Amino acid sequence: MKMPFMQAVRERVLVLDGAMGTMLQERGLKAGQSPEEMNLTAPEVVAGVHRAYLEAGADIIVTNTFGGTKAKLDHYGLGDQVARINAEAVRIAREVAGEDAYVAGSIGPTGRFVEPVGDMSFDEAHALFTEQAKALIDAGCDVISLETFLDIKEIRAALIAIRELSADIPVIAMLTFEEKGRSVLGSPPEAAAITLEAAGASIVGSNCGLGVDGIYDILCAMRKVTSLPLISQANAGLPILKDGVTVFPGTPDEMTAYHDRMLGLGVRVIGGCCGTTPAHIAAIKEALSGKQTPFTAREDDGTTWISSRGSFAAIGKKHPVALIGERINPTGKKLYSQELREGKVSYIRREALEQTELGATLLDVNVGTPGIDEPAAMERAVFCITGAVQTPLVLDSSSPEALEAGLKSADGKVLINSVNGEEKSLAAVLPLAKKYGAALVCLTLDDAGIPAEAEGRVVVAQKIADLAAAAGIKRSDLVVDCLTLTVSAEPKGALVALEAVRRVSELGLNSTLGVSNISFGLPCRPLISSTFFSMVMAAGLTSAIVNVKEAPMMSAWRSAMVLLGKDVNAAGYIDAYRGQAVGATVQPAVAAGSASPAQPEAAEPEGIRGRL
Amino acid sequence: MKMPFMQAVRERVLVLDGAMGTMLQERGLKAGQSPEEMNLTAPEVVAGVHRAYLEAGADIIVTNTFGGTKAKLDHYGLGDQVARINAEAVRIAREVAGEDAYVAGSIGPTGRFVEPVGDMSFDEAHALFTEQAKALIDAGCDVISLETFLDIKEIRAALIAIRELSADIPVIAMLTFEEKGRSVLGSPPEAAAITLEAAGASIVGSNCGLGVDGIYDILCAMRKVTSLPLISQANAGLPILKDGVTVFPGTPDEMTAYHDRMLGLGVRVIGGCCGTTPAHIAAIKEALSGKQTPFTAREDDGTTWISSRGSFAAIGKKHPVALIGERINPTGKKLYSQELREGKVSYIRREALEQTELGATLLDVNVGTPGIDEPAAMERAVFCITGAVQTPLVLDSSSPEALEAGLKSADGKVLINSVNGEEKSLAAVLPLAKKYGAALVCLTLDDAGIPAEAEGRVVVAQKIADLAAAAGIKRSDLVVDCLTLTVSAEPKGALVALEAVRRVSELGLNSTLGVSNISFGLPCRPLISSTFFSMVMAAGLTSAIVNVKEAPMMSAWRSAMVLLGKDVNAAGYIDAYRGQAVGATVQPAVAAGSASPAQPEAAEPEGIRGRL
Ligand SMILES: [Zn+2]
Ligand SMILES: [Zn+2]
Ligand SMILES: [Zn+2]
Repeated sequence: MKMPFMQAVRERVLVLDGAMGTMLQERGLKAGQSPEEMNLTAPEVVAGVHRAYLEAGADIIVTNTFGGTKAKLDHYGLGDQVARINAEAVRIAREVAGEDAYVAGSIGPTGRFVEPVGDMSFDEAHALFTEQAKALIDAGCDVISLETFLDIKEIRAALIAIRELSADIPVIAMLTFEEKGRSVLGSPPEAAAITLEAAGASIVGSNCGLGVDGIYDILCAMRKVTSLPLISQANAGLPILKDGVTVFPGTPDEMTAYHDRMLGLGVRVIGGCCGTTPAHIAAIKEALSGKQTPFTAREDDGTTWISSRGSFAAIGKKHPVALIGERINPTGKKLYSQELREGKVSYIRREALEQTELGATLLDVNVGTPGIDEPAAMERAVFCITGAVQTPLVLDSSSPEALEAGLKSADGKVLINSVNGEEKSLAAVLPLAKKYGAALVCLTLDDAGIPAEAEGRVVVAQKIADLAAAAGIKRSDLVVDCLTLTVSAEPKGALVALEAVRRVSELGLNSTLGVSNISFGLPCRPLISSTFFSMVMAAGLTSAIVNVKEAPMMSAWRSAMVLLGKDVNAAGYIDAYRGQAVGATVQPAVAAGSASPAQPEAAEPEGIRGRL
Repeated sequence: MKMPFMQAVRERVLVLDGAMGTMLQERGLKAGQSPEEMNLTAPEVVAGVHRAYLEAGADIIVTNTFGGTKAKLDHYGLGDQVARINAEAVRIAREVAGEDAYVAGSIGPTGRFVEPVGDMSFDEAHALFTEQAKALIDAGCDVISLETFLDIKEIRAALIAIRELSADIPVIAMLTFEEKGRSVLGSPPEAAAITLEAAGASIVGSNCGLGVDGIYDILCAMRKVTSLPLISQANAGLPILKDGVTVFPGTPDEMTAYHDRMLGLGVRVIGGCCGTTPAHIAAIKEALSGKQTPFTAREDDGTTWISSRGSFAAIGKKHPVALIGERINPTGKKLYSQELREGKVSYIRREALEQTELGATLLDVNVGTPGIDEPAAMERAVFCITGAVQTPLVLDSSSPEALEAGLKSADGKVLINSVNGEEKSLAAVLPLAKKYGAALVCLTLDDAGIPAEAEGRVVVAQKIADLAAAAGIKRSDLVVDCLTLTVSAEPKGALVALEAVRRVSELGLNSTLGVSNISFGLPCRPLISSTFFSMVMAAGLTSAIVNVKEAPMMSAWRSAMVLLGKDVNAAGYIDAYRGQAVGATVQPAVAAGSASPAQPEAAEPEGIRGRL
C-alpha cells in the first residue's frame, strides 16, 4: 500500500513521467487521430508507454487524457465518450503502476477561451472540467494534473470545479510560460501561483514552453508568493528547426543541471514535457538519488496576495501599504449611478484607468445602486475593468449574488469587500470566498453593531478569523477593516481606529480602513484624511481604501513609504516629487508615477520580474 | 517643640495674622516714618501687634520686615541697617510666638522694576533679596513670606536668591492681582504659579489687592497648574472711599464665607491683608474649627508647564501638542547671522511676532553664531522677544554661560534646550535648571553618541531622568528629545524615532522632536516632514520643534488635534479652514488663528481665564 500522495511529496522528490504524444506517434498514432481514443482502441500501446516510463523510474504515471474534455473530444466526434475514455485511461495507468507508482489524471485546456477574451462562460468551463475530473476521480486516480494551461482564468475554473468534487484530491496545477516569462495570455508566474493556490491547487508549477533554465526562473518567481510544493516539467530544451523538423535538443544530462537549485527552491515533483523520453526520466531519477530531504514549507509571512490576469498585489507588513482606489462606487456619484442604470461602463473604464495611473494598487468595484440587476452589473464592471487595466480587484457588494457574479467574472484572486461578524454575512460570504479562492475584507461589526472600543472590534476580528479558519480560509487571506467613524460625529473615532489597527497588527492580521470617512462634515477634508492616513500607516495599517485623486492622500502615502522603510532610497518619492514646488500643488506629475511604489510593479517581488 | 512648618501645613490649615501697617499707625507710626525702623525704636509696639494676632488665634506671626530690603530702607537712610532691622524683627516675633506660633519673615518688593521694564538688573535684585533673606534666616524665622509682589520677574529673583541660601527653608510666595485677574505687570495667576513653583516656592498664592472672592478665583486658576499648598491673604473686601478716607468694608463674617471652597482647593494658610484686624483673624480661626483635614497634593499629571510674564504653555498628554517655533536660529540663515554679529534684533522681533501669530506655543531662541558674545546676545534676544510677545521661551544653546544669561533675562519659567547624557552636559546644565527653575529638553545621546535603536535612547532618557531627580528636578519638567535622524541618510531614522516616542510616552515622560530634520535632502520636504509629524503625534509626542510657517506642518497639527481629541468639536480646525480650498494653498488665514488651538490661549486651563 502506497502512502498518500501528498505525504510522499513531503517525504521525497517524486519523478513524473515524460512526453506521451511523441511516444504514441512512434507507436502508431496518426495525424488527425485522437490520442485519447487510443485508451479505447489500443490500450496496450498506451500501457506500453506507461511501462517504459515506469521502468525508467517514474514515480508518477500520467494518464493519456490531456485532451479528455468534451470540448476537445468533440473534434473527433467522441464528445459522448468523456467518462469512458477518462475512466479507461485511469484503469490502464493503474494496472501498469500497481503499487510502484501514483496515477495522475491529466487534464489539459479546452482549446477555447473564457469570456470576455473568448466566448466560453465560466459556467461552461466549469461544467467541462467537472465532467472530466469526475470521471478521473471516480476511476481512482491518485492526483489530478492540470497541464499546459495558457490562461489562468481557464485553469482557475478547472480548479474550482475539481474542489467542488473533492476537497481532498491532490491537484497539480501548471501553466505554460513563454520565453518572456509570461503565459500566452499575459500572466506573470506570481499572478499564476497566487491564483492557483487560492483556487485550491496542492502543487503549482509549470510545464512545457521552456527548458529547465526557463522553468527554474518561473518557479523562483512563483516561490516569492507561495509556500506550496512546486513542480517542474520542462521541455528537453528550446525547440530548434533541423532539416525542417522541430527537434528538442536537450540531453538527459542537461535536464538535470538545475536539480540542486530546483530542490533548494522546494520543487517536489520533476518530470519532462516535449522532447523528453524514458532516457530523460531515468537521468532525472538517477540525479535525485541521495538528495532526498523532506519538504519544509516556508513559513507564511502573513501577506495577502491578490492577482489579476496580468499583475498581482500584496497586502502585508513587508510591503508598501496597498492603496485600494475607492472611486468606482456610486455613493454620491450621480453620473456613475446613471450609467449603472443604463448599463454603460464609460465611468468605470475611465476611473479604472485614472486610478491605476495615479497609483492605485487595487480597485474597489461597487455597482450597488437601486433598481438594477446587480449581478449582471458586477459582471459587466469586472469585464470592463479587466479589459482596461491589470490592477487587481476588490469586489465590493452586500449582495452574495453580485459577489458570486464578480467571482466568476474575475481572472484571478480577488479581495471580497466584505464579510462581517453577523451570522447572516458569515453564512453567505465565507463559503463564496472558499469556493472561488478569494481573500476577505472583514468588517469589525456584528449583530450587536459597531463596537465602540478597539477591544470589541478586535474580538469581532478574532471571531471572524476563527470561523474563516474553520471554513478553510487562511488567516493571511483576511484583511480586517477596523472601521473609520467620522470624527466630527464621534470624537474618539480616530483614536479607537488607531488602537484597533495597532491591535490587529499585533495579531499578525492585515488591516484596512476607509480612510476618507474620518473627515466627513469638516472643511478641507483631505487635510484631516491625509493626517489620519499618516497616523494609521505608522500604526501598522497594511492597506487603505482611499481616493487616489486627492493629492494630500498620495503625498501622505508616498512620504509614509519613505518613513516606514518601504521606499528604498526614497526612489519612488523622489521620482514623484523631484523638481516640484510644495504648497501650490502637491500632486506629482502623473508620468512620474510609473516608477513610484504606487504602481503594482513595485509590490512585485524581484526575480523574473526584473527581466521584463 | 513645634513640628516643622511644612509638616504642620500638611496636617492642618494654619491661620496667618492680619495687617501690620494699619495696626502700627494706630499705635503711633507717623507718615513718612519707616515701619521697619520700629523694630529698633519701638520693639514693644511691634510685639504688641504680634501679641494681638496671637491672641486672636494666629498660627503664624509675620515679622515687621515688609520693606526690609536695602532698596526700601535706603529711602529712610537705613540702608546700612538691613541685617539688624531684620534680625530684631525676627527676635521680637519669636519672643511673642514662643512655642505657640510660627514666625514668618516678611519680604516685600524693592520698589524698583527689573530690566528691561526697569533699570534693576537680575543680579542687583538677587543681591538685595539675598541680604534680607540671609538676615531673616540667620535670625531663625520658620518660614519666609514673599508678599504683595507685582512683578513675577522680581519675586522670581527673590526665590532664586533664597533657594541659594537654603534649599530647605519653607517659602511662601504671593503676588497681588488686580480685579481683571492679572498682576499689575500683566501676569495671569497660572503664569505666576508656574514661575513661583519652578523657582522654589513651597506655598503659592495671593495677598492684597482683592477680597476673598477675588482671591478665590485667583487660587482656582493657580490650582490648574500647581499641586503645591495654596495661601489666601485677602483684603477685607475691596476698598471704598468713605468721607475721603479709604475703608475696607469686609466684615469678619464675610472673610470666612469662602472657607469651605478654599479648603476644597487645597488652601492651607489663610490670613488677612489690608483692613483685617485681630477680629477678622479670630473669625477665620473660629471658622476653621472642626474642618481640619490633612493636605493631599493632587497627583502630578506629568504636564511640563512653561511661563512667560503674561502667558503660559503646557507640554503634556492632556494638552494639544506644543509647537516650538524653530525659526530664531541662525543655522542656514544669513540675514539673522549677520544681525547677530551686528547686535541687531529686527529678525528676532519679526520672527517672534510672526511665529506667534501663526500658532507657535513656544519660541526657540538660538543665538549661536561664531565670533559673538553669546551670553550678551542671548540677553538681548530674550529682552527683545519678551518685549514683543508673551509666548514662553525655549533657550537653545550649547553654552552654559549663554543659557545662564538667558535664564537671568527671562521673566518666567523657560525650557532649556538642552541637556544630554554626556557627563559634561549633565554637570553644567542640571544645576542651571535647578537654580533658575527651568524645564529641560533632554537629548537622548551620551558620550557614546546617538543610540541607533529606540531602546538605547530610552535608556539615556531614563539615565538623565534619574540624575535630574537626584538634582531636585521634577520628572514632569523633562521633555525628552528622541532625536530625528534624516531618513534619506538613515533609512530606519523615522521608525526608530517613532518607537522611541512611543516608549518615552509609556514611561510618562514628555517628548519632543526636531521634526523637519527628517526630510533633509529630499524634494518637497514639508510633505515628508508633515507626514512624519502626523505619525509621531499619534505615537504620543507632546511637543515638536517645527517651522510653523510651513502650511503642511500646521495642517498636520490642526488635523491631528481633531483626530487625537484635543480640539473639541474641531472648533480650532474649523476656524482655521472654514471656506478654504485645499490643494491650492492649505495655509489658513492668519486672522482665523486667534481662536484656534494654535494659540497659547487654547492651552490655558479654564477658570479665571474665561473672564479675561
Ligand atoms: Zn511540452
Ligand atoms: Zn507535455
Ligand atoms: Zn494688602
